[in-house]
Amino acid sequence: SKRYSITLLPGDGIGPEVISVAKHVLILAGSLEGIEFNFQEMPMGGSALDLVGVPLPEETLSAAKKSDAVLLGAIGGYKWDKNEKHLKPETGLLQLREGLRVFANLRPATVLPQLVDASTLKKEVAEGVDLMVVRELTGGIYFGKPRGFGTNEDGEEIGFNTEVYATYEVDRIARVAFETARKRHGKLCSVDKANVLEASMFWRKRVIAVAAEYPDVELSHMYVDNAAMQLVRNPKQFDTIVTNNIFGDILSDEASMITGSIGMLPSASLGSSGPGLFEPIHGSAPDIANQDKANPLATVLSAAMLLKYGLGEEKAAKRIENAVLDTLNKGFRTGDIYSAGNKLVGCKEMGEEVLKSI
Amino acid sequence: SKRYSITLLPGDGIGPEVISVAKHVLILAGSLEGIEFNFQEMPMGGSALDLVGVPLPEETLSAAKKSDAVLLGAIGGYKWDKNEKHLKPETGLLQLREGLRVFANLRPATVLPQLVDASTLKKEVAEGVDLMVVRELTGGIYFGKPRGFGTNEDGEEIGFNTEVYATYEVDRIARVAFETARKRHGKLCSVDKANVLEASMFWRKRVIAVAAEYPDVELSHMYVDNAAMQLVRNPKQFDTIVTNNIFGDILSDEASMITGSIGMLPSASLGSSGPGLFEPIHGSAPDIANQDKANPLATVLSAAMLLKYGLGEEKAAKRIENAVLDTLNKGFRTGDIYSAGNKLVGCKEMGEEVLKSI
Ligand SMILES: CC(C)[C@H](C(=O)O)[C@@H](O)C(=O)O
Ligand SMILES: CC(C)[C@H](C(=O)O)[C@@H](O)C(=O)O
Repeated sequence: SKRYSITLLPGDGIGPEVISVAKHVLILAGSLEGIEFNFQEMPMGGSALDLVGVPLPEETLSAAKKSDAVLLGAIGGYKWDKNEKHLKPETGLLQLREGLRVFANLRPATVLPQLVDASTLKKEVAEGVDLMVVRELTGGIYFGKPRGFGTNEDGEEIGFNTEVYATYEVDRIARVAFETARKRHGKLCSVDKANVLEASMFWRKRVIAVAAEYPDVELSHMYVDNAAMQLVRNPKQFDTIVTNNIFGDILSDEASMITGSIGMLPSASLGSSGPGLFEPIHGSAPDIANQDKANPLATVLSAAMLLKYGLGEEKAAKRIENAVLDTLNKGFRTGDIYSAGNKLVGCKEMGEEVLKSI
Repeated sequence: SKRYSITLLPGDGIGPEVISVAKHVLILAGSLEGIEFNFQEMPMGGSALDLVGVPLPEETLSAAKKSDAVLLGAIGGYKWDKNEKHLKPETGLLQLREGLRVFANLRPATVLPQLVDASTLKKEVAEGVDLMVVRELTGGIYFGKPRGFGTNEDGEEIGFNTEVYATYEVDRIARVAFETARKRHGKLCSVDKANVLEASMFWRKRVIAVAAEYPDVELSHMYVDNAAMQLVRNPKQFDTIVTNNIFGDILSDEASMITGSIGMLPSASLGSSGPGLFEPIHGSAPDIANQDKANPLATVLSAAMLLKYGLGEEKAAKRIENAVLDTLNKGFRTGDIYSAGNKLVGCKEMGEEVLKSI
């Protein structure tokens, strides 16, 4: 039987609750496919700050690097919101992404037929939405230098950041995006602001260059402001979207809200080699933490992405995905996706129902 | 009687058609309030490129600077899309904003009861939306230096831009935003990415400093990714939003699409002194140009903003706004906002109906 080592990073707020569910789901789905896991839980985010004073302890990063895949719950909370930058939970997340070199963030936004009413969009606009945002995750304005505070020529105080992309950075994310589009419906839309920004003109030039390797994928380009509109107007027009770090941050959140069920949406962050990082796209929701109210399905589906993209275990992944659909078909709903006529359950019970369906 | 000089910049595509309507509306509404106008039409955008080889001729900028207000139609088109940056219509627009020093871009997004069905959002989510985006327009990554192309330490090609804000830039846009919120419902939401970007931390610090002058306005802060979600989830939560140039570009377009009728939405760009720039938020729509299909109401409402914000002529502005509502109440609709049971009209006829209603 195969054996993989998984680093679990429960994090803050509802993180530990949803990670606990996903862990049990992994164990069961794995065992049915002859897969065993060694789990190692490590502190990260606000809980690491409280424990050892930094948001990403060295031990956590090195354990993550040595494992086959990393599953993260959620990080952050009011308690640490006023911390200085290097002592913010979010900084730990950025350090983790950088440390694992996971430059490709895959964020699906799918409207499940069972949950189409959860969207604020009209049914005919929302139903059938099934898109994937491929976001560059370790470059651009998030990491660009120079950055910081200073004074300008007039002696005025300033704050500044640098948006910068190099050839290898655009080329490798473009390749991931083209490969992703090829496995989906063969359509890739690259989003930029090439009518204003040099960094975007460069981005577009490299995406076009890489496109020569993928003649079977239909490439289009869209300005980011228009993309933000088109996601509202007609999200079904999109198959795969590729974009930079900051535009991807904004557009993938917009796309996920369009589905109406962000408690359902997983994500995968992948590098060229080494372990991938898998996490639900929702936050740590401190207001409902420890009340058994959280929706664990986004983390459960992140575990499925871990199996599929992180370990190449497609069969075990499919088991989990099917079990989630099954559980929804049976009418089980946590509060965030509840609608009349269904069965309201807590985090734990939802987890148990998924286990039954596997 | 009062007399104002107005620079008209018809621009490209449907620009000339909608400007022609707005001009006649201005003349009539003005005459009823004892106001006369001198209009001067100048070339700008693609049509200026074709005529004299630059997107913003010097004569156009100096005429605009000398006038009391500037009304722009729309610029751009496929024909000039592949032009080098300094020969793009968009570059002319950025030069115009910079030249007029119009740092504050006011973009209302209002769902009119008559047009609530045009939104892709569910009726209960869309109805009653009435928000204003105050976008910083002459700073940030649009204008920051250094910018361009080069090579990094590894000899790799790069493209880069600088996001930068100085104290005076944030302070003045914050003041416009607080004043705007004060005249509306007293709520201001400042949108940034202060959990990652130093430029945003600086932005937030200055907005908080300026807030001391406006104790009657309720200030909140939101990350840009969350704002992109909240606009879809519950746009009614917003009154006034203030944000930087690039986030404002994205969010104001998203907000306008949420109304479902971008053919209706005007904008105003204001400086500390000198003429303001007024324009519809829609583009030049080359595919329907010269077919008498364009919706002129966004430009007509931009003319109303010109009267109100540019010239302080509130009464004449109100006449135009009321005439537009009247025309909609009578059931007149251009194709973009048409729904069954209404009267489909072209650009010219819509203009004539507004004139009748004034
Ligand atoms: C928490 C924050 C630093 C992070 C980001 O901006 O990347 C988050 O918004 C995300 O999208 O994962
Ligand atoms: C045309 C383009 C340069 C412009 C911008 O990005 O500012 C447009 O999108 C706008 O919002 O007015």
